[in-house]
Amino acid sequence: MAIKTLKDGLVNELRDMLSAENQIVKALPKMIKNTGSDELRQALQDHLDETREQAERVKGALNILGGSERAKACAGMKGIIEEGDEIMKDASDDTLDALIIAAAQKVEHYEIASYGTAIAWAELLGETDVVNLLTESLNEEKAADEKLTEIARSANVEATEAA
Amino acid sequence: MAIKTLKDGLVNELRDMLSAENQIVKALPKMIKNTGSDELRQALQDHLDETREQAERVKGALNILGGSERAKACAGMKGIIEEGDEIMKDASDDTLDALIIAAAQKVEHYEIASYGTAIAWAELLGETDVVNLLTESLNEEKAADEKLTEIARSANVEATEAA
Repeated sequence: MAIKTLKDGLVNELRDMLSAENQIVKALPKMIKNTGSDELRQALQDHLDETREQAERVKGALNILGGSERAKACAGMKGIIEEGDEIMKDASDDTLDALIIAAAQKVEHYEIASYGTAIAWAELLGETDVVNLLTESLNEEKAADEKLTEIARSANVEATEAA
Repeated sequence: MAIKTLKDGLVNELRDMLSAENQIVKALPKMIKNTGSDELRQALQDHLDETREQAERVKGALNILGGSERAKACAGMKGIIEEGDEIMKDASDDTLDALIIAAAQKVEHYEIASYGTAIAWAELLGETDVVNLLTESLNEEKAADEKLTEIARSANVEATEAA
């Protein structure tokens, strides 16, 4: 689609985000199944529930903007998830949690960048309802990233002790 | 490769980062060529020079760790760059700079997540020289991201006025 205006850019970005969120909903259960840490399992499960809501918020934002609610295949998230799948195959039991966290933090940072851009554009366009919806998701992504950093401390120590 | 220890994980992550940095070195010239903003052009050019140094630092870190200096294809960065290429094709003259910045910030955030993980692991492994090398790169990535946010303000306003 031709992106003639910033509003077109925002709709395009949100359709990409909808694909990203849908891909994450599919990818998280495998991470949840593979982890040996109750704390990490719970954090990923909570984030799976949030991710489903985030996808709904993106649809809500597209609806407000009158854009297509059709997801547009997000190649960035596809690559990040592929990498995570590969690393889970290569990991030993001792390093698996540390590697799952690393993969999940790449996912979070992709989303932090994308929501940051989308919010800046929506602000300029005076789309306050869209700003509010997306800010809620951005705050959740940042909190999820911080929670993962916190859990990483114990997971990394475990992986170091195996070295 | 099997990732049995956190050190294996760190080597694996750095080989991924080496591929990511190499891909960015190839992708930035197209962004530099396409932008109509002198300020953005200069910022991307400066970051291209930094990126070449960052690739050397990653090689230096791999050398310290005794790991292979061979890059390992980074699927995440490949997807992010593909998306940026696609968006540059779809953009109008008015929205191009805003979209280039959005794509470049996704690149930066991937790297911020990756260096963050690698530094945490290197700290735990007591690899102080590796920590120092990578922290220099992480600080550059964060500064590049902030610079892009700053330039985005004027680029976005230009794109809004075209709406």
